[in-house]
Amino acid sequence: MLQNGIYAASLTPLNAHLDIDVPTWARHVRWLLDNGCDGVVLFGTTGEANSFSVAERRNALDALLDEDVPADRLIVGTGCCAVPDTVALSRHAVERGTAGVLMLPPFYYKEVRDEGLFQAFDRVIQGVGDERLRILLYHFPRMSGVPFSHDLIERLAATHPDAIAGIKDSSGDWSHIEGLCMAFPDLQVFAGTEAFLQDVLEAGGAGCVSATVNMTSPLASSIYAGGPDGEVSPLQERLTTLRQTIAGFPMIPALKQITDWHYDHPGWRRVRPPLVPLDPETASSLKDAFTDLELPIPIS
Amino acid sequence: MLQNGIYAASLTPLNAHLDIDVPTWARHVRWLLDNGCDGVVLFGTTGEANSFSVAERRNALDALLDEDVPADRLIVGTGCCAVPDTVALSRHAVERGTAGVLMLPPFYYKEVRDEGLFQAFDRVIQGVGDERLRILLYHFPRMSGVPFSHDLIERLAATHPDAIAGIKDSSGDWSHIEGLCMAFPDLQVFAGTEAFLQDVLEAGGAGCVSATVNMTSPLASSIYAGGPDGEVSPLQERLTTLRQTIAGFPMIPALKQITDWHYDHPGWRRVRPPLVPLDPETASSLKDAFTDLELPIPIS
Repeated sequence: MLQNGIYAASLTPLNAHLDIDVPTWARHVRWLLDNGCDGVVLFGTTGEANSFSVAERRNALDALLDEDVPADRLIVGTGCCAVPDTVALSRHAVERGTAGVLMLPPFYYKEVRDEGLFQAFDRVIQGVGDERLRILLYHFPRMSGVPFSHDLIERLAATHPDAIAGIKDSSGDWSHIEGLCMAFPDLQVFAGTEAFLQDVLEAGGAGCVSATVNMTSPLASSIYAGGPDGEVSPLQERLTTLRQTIAGFPMIPALKQITDWHYDHPGWRRVRPPLVPLDPETASSLKDAFTDLELPIPIS
Repeated sequence: MLQNGIYAASLTPLNAHLDIDVPTWARHVRWLLDNGCDGVVLFGTTGEANSFSVAERRNALDALLDEDVPADRLIVGTGCCAVPDTVALSRHAVERGTAGVLMLPPFYYKEVRDEGLFQAFDRVIQGVGDERLRILLYHFPRMSGVPFSHDLIERLAATHPDAIAGIKDSSGDWSHIEGLCMAFPDLQVFAGTEAFLQDVLEAGGAGCVSATVNMTSPLASSIYAGGPDGEVSPLQERLTTLRQTIAGFPMIPALKQITDWHYDHPGWRRVRPPLVPLDPETASSLKDAFTDLELPIPIS
């Protein structure tokens, strides 16, 4: 089983060639682990995973681990369109001692049948062939276009009870997240946004894996430490407001802009196409939005 | 400029390990070129492109060319989520002497800005760095989730007039295809279905690139030979009915099932997950659908 708690879906910093800047990345991942994160997800949607080749992803993970980042607190996004790519990345993540993998379904074909998705995951798990494999299924229909049905989750979990650890629900729909918590009490259900952090803990969920935790980790961690009981706390209200404010901007460029301010390191603003950095005007609006609404991390 | 005319988006046959069966593929591609196709597109949506790794795609193209398939009548699908993958596949296709490439936009992130898509294509074209590169932009929003706007096409064609040859419009929406023909008379506009073959020729388009041409190529070729003038021919009506009949089934599995019958080669039915082959009952319905409606190719 994976560690429950607060996970940032880490941003991936880039150098001027738009290649991964590993030392800068290592510094950020260590900062997250030292500032409230129980673990960090690499190469999720926020980490621009699918904008990198398989070789780039493998090499960057190797280089990151060489920078004294603890493997056992990392979850690595590995789900690609092609099963052989997902096998290669997942096997590598297991062999490097990471805690688990976050797995998108194959996401090119839409309206595919559960049988086909089951076969894809089954082939990946058998292809990796390692009993240490722990998978978080990655439900993000708005981006992948390929949702997980309850039937599919149930069949996967029944067939591979050790490998299927849980699910990250990025639907943004509380009723869907709650439905997963109720239907699958033996799986670790992570909300894809810390706006539902108290809710998901009360529903028996495992925590959250979220883009915005790149800057809200100290606050999210305080809420997590408080446990599932009680009223909606003022801390949760503040966290939700922060999340909603950032979500009013293009999410990944906005988070990279804030991280640039936090570390005072303009390289952080870079993204790979098809994403684009915030233009100066939008960046200025973003800063204005946080004038009255203090971030849990200092920005300059 | 690419050859105008009739292109099949070739199916990709698989062996029992679900690896590409190159001799069987070569036989089919040669059959298509001998039976009405002006050219063949490899690794489009129909060819399950995104279900194969970059290495699988490169190796299979090399092996196919070793089977005496003429490179200059091939267009190769190369568009991936990651720019380095698209560069690698496109450069390989150019170096092997193929006529052009069919390029999906990076398709993981949705609702991206034209600026980001422009930068992605611009980086690919500069990354390939070969003046022989000829690109068909691949507009298939229902599958990719990422449409091409007229503004984007115009900017790409103005910036890279030699590289941007045209566009394959798989929207299935005649008004969209017609709009492209009118807006971009200097580009080669291919309809993504031969149901619009006469229409697109009358609108000044270049032809069609279609999945169902895997079995309608003799008929589509006759219509193409007749040119753009005149009434909707009975041949076109028959072609449209065939297309619509096949489209009532899961398209790629149905086409592979028909190809299995055509060659009397059950291996043809295989698909890679997340697709699944037709179940026997659906296959039986498919055969029934063609009892009264003769296919342009013999099936057993």
